[in-house]
Amino acid sequence: MTIDAAYYCGDKTFQLERIEPVDPGRGQVQIDVAYCGICGTDLHVYLGHMDARIGNHRVIGHEMSGRIAAIGPDVEGLEIADAVVVRPLDHCGECPACQAGHQHICHKLKFLGLDTDGAFQGKWTVPAHTVHKLPDGLQLDHAALVEPLAVAAHDVRRARVAAKEDVLVIGGGPIGMLVALAAREAGANVTLSEVNENRIAIAHDMGFTALNPREVDVDEVVNAATGNKGADVVFEVSGTQAGVDLMTKAAAARGRICMVAIHAKKPEIDLFQFFWRELEMLGARVYEPADYDKAIAMLTGGIGAERLITDIRALNAIGDAFKALTENPASMKTLICINEGVA
Amino acid sequence: MTIDAAYYCGDKTFQLERIEPVDPGRGQVQIDVAYCGICGTDLHVYLGHMDARIGNHRVIGHEMSGRIAAIGPDVEGLEIADAVVVRPLDHCGECPACQAGHQHICHKLKFLGLDTDGAFQGKWTVPAHTVHKLPDGLQLDHAALVEPLAVAAHDVRRARVAAKEDVLVIGGGPIGMLVALAAREAGANVTLSEVNENRIAIAHDMGFTALNPREVDVDEVVNAATGNKGADVVFEVSGTQAGVDLMTKAAAARGRICMVAIHAKKPEIDLFQFFWRELEMLGARVYEPADYDKAIAMLTGGIGAERLITDIRALNAIGDAFKALTENPASMKTLICINEGVA
Repeated sequence: MTIDAAYYCGDKTFQLERIEPVDPGRGQVQIDVAYCGICGTDLHVYLGHMDARIGNHRVIGHEMSGRIAAIGPDVEGLEIADAVVVRPLDHCGECPACQAGHQHICHKLKFLGLDTDGAFQGKWTVPAHTVHKLPDGLQLDHAALVEPLAVAAHDVRRARVAAKEDVLVIGGGPIGMLVALAAREAGANVTLSEVNENRIAIAHDMGFTALNPREVDVDEVVNAATGNKGADVVFEVSGTQAGVDLMTKAAAARGRICMVAIHAKKPEIDLFQFFWRELEMLGARVYEPADYDKAIAMLTGGIGAERLITDIRALNAIGDAFKALTENPASMKTLICINEGVA
Repeated sequence: MTIDAAYYCGDKTFQLERIEPVDPGRGQVQIDVAYCGICGTDLHVYLGHMDARIGNHRVIGHEMSGRIAAIGPDVEGLEIADAVVVRPLDHCGECPACQAGHQHICHKLKFLGLDTDGAFQGKWTVPAHTVHKLPDGLQLDHAALVEPLAVAAHDVRRARVAAKEDVLVIGGGPIGMLVALAAREAGANVTLSEVNENRIAIAHDMGFTALNPREVDVDEVVNAATGNKGADVVFEVSGTQAGVDLMTKAAAARGRICMVAIHAKKPEIDLFQFFWRELEMLGARVYEPADYDKAIAMLTGGIGAERLITDIRALNAIGDAFKALTENPASMKTLICINEGVA
C-alpha cells in the first residue's frame, strides 16, 4: 500500500509523490495523519530561508493529529486507533543540556518534520516517546493546535504567569494569540499589541484588549491601566526592534519578559531598564512533556483556540495553501487535511 | 561644635567647609563617620556626569562606616558608640514597587549621598531604618566595604548562584571583584574576564582564574573547561558591547545572566541565543536588608575583600584621592578616613 507525501522541492514548490510508508522499527509507531497545520517555520521553509538545513526533497509538517496505525517492537501504552499527537523533538541524551534535564533544548536536538521527514504525508513513523494520547472529547482538527498551543503553554509556564497579573503580548500572530489564550487561562489580565487590523479584529472577537502601537503608545495605556505599575509579564512575539523597545518600556519593576520570538538580527536593548527596574528576561523554546499535557487539557476544556483555524485544505492543495497564507493578511492558521477518514 | 564637610562643587573640584552638623530628628540617628570609600558613582559625580541630578554644592559619599553619635526620638535598638554602616536608600512606601515589597527599586527611590548630603563629612544624620549594626570583630576600615559587597551579595542572590556552579564575571573592577568573591563564597567555580593587566594581577593574587579577552576567546576557554556546557551564571559588570557579546556566547543552556553594569547606551544583544538556549537575564540594582546582613557576615568571616583597599587618604586630600583614582590603573578602592579617632 502506498501513501501520498508532499515534498518541499525548493523555491515555493511542493510535489506530491506516491511512496511506501516507513514501517515502525523498535520503539517506533506509525500514525495515520488526520490533520497537519502550517507553522510559521514551515512558511520559512516554503520561502527558501531554510534550504541549507532542509535540502530540497523533504516532507515537512509537525503540527499534526492522527491515529496509531502500526506499532513497532518494545512500545508500551499505545494501541491501534488511539488518537494521538506528536511532540516532534528527538534529543541526544548525552549533552550538558540533556544531562541537566533540559532535553527540549538538547545541543543536538533533532526537530521531526525539519531534520527528518514530517507529517504532510498519509502515514508518519516516529519514536513512540514523542507521542501523547488524546482524550475522547477532543476533535482531531482542533488537536492539530496542540503543538502550537504547547509552545504557548511553555511560554506562560516559563514566565510564571499567575492569576490576576497584568500581561502584555507583543505580536498577534498565531503564537501570540495562543500565548494570550494560555495567559488568560492562567487567570491573567491580557492586553495584546498588534499592527495588523485583521488580527486586531480577531483578538477583539476573542475578547482581548488589542492595541495598535502605530496608533497609541501601548506602554502609556498599560501604565495608565495598572496604576503606573506596568505589565507584570511581557511576551515579545513580534521579532521586531519596535517590539523590543516596547517590552522594556511596558514592564513593571521586577517584571518578567518572555522572549518567544526568533530574532535573526541582534536588536538594540535598553539594558539600563533591566538594571534600574530589575527586569528579568526568560528565553523560551518549544516545549516539554508537561506543556503538551497542559495544551491537551486546555483544548479539551475549551479555550476557544479553534477560532484561529481560518482555513482547511486537502493535501493535494498544499502549494495553494502555503501561497494563500503568505498573501492573505486575515488568515491565521491553515490546516491540511491529510486523511479525512481518520478524523 | 562644627565639623568638616567636603562639598562637590562641579568640574572635578571639592571644597572643605566647616559646618554645623545636622541634629537627628524623629526616627533619625547621627553618625560619627570613620571611613567612606569612593564609589564608581562618586567618580561619575566628580567627572561632572551627574550635575543635573546632584547640583554643584553636594556632600557625596555612601560607602561608609562609623559609630552612633546621637539618637533622635522614636529610635529603638541603637545605642551611642554602636559601630554601624548605612544602607543608603530611602523609599516612598506607596509606589507599585514598594507595594510589591521591592522597596530597593522604589519608583521614587532617594539615594542618600546623591539625592541628599552624604558621608564625606564628620557627622552624618540618616533615617535609623537605614542603619545596620556591626559585630565586634569587624574593623571599621574593612566595614567601609559593606556597601559595595552588599551590591555583590545582591547580585549573587538574584542570580541564584549555587555550590559547584561555573561562574563567569565579565569586568574586574571593584564590583566585579566583589561579585567574584561573593560567588566563590557561595561555592561557585569563578572565572574572571578583564582587560586591565593590573586588575588581572590582583585577581590572580586573590586566587581567581582571570582571562584577558583581548588575548584569548573567553567563551572558548569557559566551554573547554566545562565539557562544552558553558557558564551556569554570567555577571556582566563591564558595561561594554564586548561584554554583552561575551555574555550570550559563554552562558550554558538555561544559563543565568546577571546584569550588574549600568549601560547608558543600548547595546545590541544576541536575542536568538536567549531563545535557542533558553537563557535568563536578571537585572540587579543595589541591595535589600538581607544583602547587608550577608555582606557583614562575609566580611566578618574573612573573604579577603580588604585586598581591594589600595589607598586610604584624609578628608582634606579628597580632591587628590579622586584625581589619583581616575589616573592610576592599578588602584581599586580608595577610602577616605574621616575621623581617625572613631575607628
